[in-house]
Amino acid sequence: MNVLVINCGSSSLKYQLLDMDTETVLAKGLAERIGIDGAVVVHQPAGKDKVKFEQPMETHKEALDIIMAALVDADHGVIKDLKEIDAVGHRTVHGAETFASSVVINDEVIKKMEDCSELAPLHNPANLIGIRACEELLPGVPMVGVFDTAFHQTMPAEAYIYPLPYEMYEKYRIRKYGFHGTSHRFVSLTAAELLGENIGNLKLISCHLGNGASVAAIRYGKCIDTSMGLTPLAGLEMGTRCGDIDPAIIPFLCDKGYTVDQVNTMMNKESGVLGVSGVSSDFRDVEAAAEAGNERAKLALDIFIYRVKTTIGAYVAAMDGVDGIIFTAGLGENSAKDRAAVCSGLKYLGIQLDEEKNSKRGEALVISTPDSRTKVMVIPTNEELMIARDTVELVG
Amino acid sequence: MNVLVINCGSSSLKYQLLDMDTETVLAKGLAERIGIDGAVVVHQPAGKDKVKFEQPMETHKEALDIIMAALVDADHGVIKDLKEIDAVGHRTVHGAETFASSVVINDEVIKKMEDCSELAPLHNPANLIGIRACEELLPGVPMVGVFDTAFHQTMPAEAYIYPLPYEMYEKYRIRKYGFHGTSHRFVSLTAAELLGENIGNLKLISCHLGNGASVAAIRYGKCIDTSMGLTPLAGLEMGTRCGDIDPAIIPFLCDKGYTVDQVNTMMNKESGVLGVSGVSSDFRDVEAAAEAGNERAKLALDIFIYRVKTTIGAYVAAMDGVDGIIFTAGLGENSAKDRAAVCSGLKYLGIQLDEEKNSKRGEALVISTPDSRTKVMVIPTNEELMIARDTVELVG
Repeated sequence: MNVLVINCGSSSLKYQLLDMDTETVLAKGLAERIGIDGAVVVHQPAGKDKVKFEQPMETHKEALDIIMAALVDADHGVIKDLKEIDAVGHRTVHGAETFASSVVINDEVIKKMEDCSELAPLHNPANLIGIRACEELLPGVPMVGVFDTAFHQTMPAEAYIYPLPYEMYEKYRIRKYGFHGTSHRFVSLTAAELLGENIGNLKLISCHLGNGASVAAIRYGKCIDTSMGLTPLAGLEMGTRCGDIDPAIIPFLCDKGYTVDQVNTMMNKESGVLGVSGVSSDFRDVEAAAEAGNERAKLALDIFIYRVKTTIGAYVAAMDGVDGIIFTAGLGENSAKDRAAVCSGLKYLGIQLDEEKNSKRGEALVISTPDSRTKVMVIPTNEELMIARDTVELVG
Repeated sequence: MNVLVINCGSSSLKYQLLDMDTETVLAKGLAERIGIDGAVVVHQPAGKDKVKFEQPMETHKEALDIIMAALVDADHGVIKDLKEIDAVGHRTVHGAETFASSVVINDEVIKKMEDCSELAPLHNPANLIGIRACEELLPGVPMVGVFDTAFHQTMPAEAYIYPLPYEMYEKYRIRKYGFHGTSHRFVSLTAAELLGENIGNLKLISCHLGNGASVAAIRYGKCIDTSMGLTPLAGLEMGTRCGDIDPAIIPFLCDKGYTVDQVNTMMNKESGVLGVSGVSSDFRDVEAAAEAGNERAKLALDIFIYRVKTTIGAYVAAMDGVDGIIFTAGLGENSAKDRAAVCSGLKYLGIQLDEEKNSKRGEALVISTPDSRTKVMVIPTNEELMIARDTVELVG
């Protein structure tokens, strides 16, 4: 069974075509700058060279047209006919309280997703554009929506209700939703396999650390807390996002003459390691600057490590213990230094890293020593595979 | 040596006169509704009946006039002459980065305190009014300022810098300051005595839980993190304050038509256990409602316990371990149930409460069992005594 996985942003479209009998990627790629000058599709068939299509694309449908043609192309295609696409799995961002798991997409689901758009005004409409384009280009092919928020719907109320007037929840649906759910779910399931344990017996903390970053507390396979909130702004320090701050800072800045919109932009786009370091939102640039002696770059990284570490600590308390800690996503998978920095302050959990294993890359691995009381793991995330698995499960 | 301790609010003035040779309270009292209809001074000489003075008071100086007269009154006075007041200790709220410890008040200090007023526009001006009134009524008597923020000035930058653009710190002094510092300092020192240990060897977490509430991580006698922030809004759920929320909620609510001022008022006055329960800002009322089956009252308390517990967890990680956890202030000292609820989720720290000791009230006490790996203590806070001690130390 072949599943096409689609991740639609406002001006981008990522895709992967997977053969789910073997769970292998047949082709993957990315359309960028859709509707903007300089639009491009980069198509990567497995085992072959990349192909670039630089041509105007006004809409996501035009981008998908190019992608479909590439998938069946005689040279760089990987299937003979679009009929070989058995199902489409869409990464969908915000499922509010409506979607606690993945779902087969139909008119009613689309309507409910539109209803959730208010909570993710940048993402959900883009997801819906991708869904409609696929409907047109692959009529009759079943589609599944896999929500970034769904995995977190098992949180108890004391974790997801903000101590604001309760009407804010009832009237505007203001609560903690959490994001990166598909990634946290994938790596927690993989961690259980790696440890040879039933996930129903494990207390896990998964750290998805990339330019966006979140931590999740996963007790016996269910998420009970996570660091992102109503929006992906909350929690850790990120590339350009501030994470948690004293909420009184916003009125304080408005008193200084900033508009709410300016503060919102500042918190989302000009803060995080970029804001503190003044160097870059890319952790690698900031690390290079810190190594060269830039004090603010060092501080930006110290804050990041400190927040990851204390969030892990908070979730150990939330679960009254922890069996394993997982690092994933760009930084989590690739920065041995950051993993070591986080773990060096967690000796009270009986953590001992195996330095040699911690220096490896690219594979799911336990990086703590055999007698480490809490296991530490690096697990490359694979949201596309998780989306494809859900798709197979629901339509297969 | 007799020390008069003064805590001036915008329309109130609390006082205690202490004999510091024996550390005993000679008299204490409270002036309320200063400058408002219904002004009253309640004066309580030690071992005697309370006296009430209900009469108009336009200013804090008029209130202090009544208090001074009461202190030397033939019937309910406790000294013969105001000359027996050797020094005055003022509770002062915000010392910014200027005051990392208590200080003898002089013109330069007053000027610097005025400069900090911007950061505590409700509190610092009231403190200054009290200082000026004392200068007039007790000319020549030395005065000391004991700042609520000073104890937290030892926090490292990764704990106090918010990941906003760094200019926000440089230009507007936006950072974490923390509050309740005098209380956290007092109970941590008392905890070391109670445990018979040098505070320089202890990792302590102090939970000041009242209508305002904060937690502090105190490593080897120095604060390294605390839950309040730029303002006392941040951190835990409180009586009417929301504590930490996704900061994006504020722009979200402004989009719904709220003004920033309305959201600010909501977060400070209409949130917390009041906002969630809809019942009251007083924890006792909310507990009664919860016991009577009110689900939202129960949720409000669950959130409170959950946040205290996870904040403790975060600070255990911040210090890489903990030796003792301290409960203090209204709820912390009086609610055996809340202490048990917080500790019941912290078995991973080897905590075992002694139920009988936990049910006691009013004295500093270790309430964990002798073999509890982490010690748990109840310690009645005494900010006035701490202020008086600092005063003696600086002017004695």
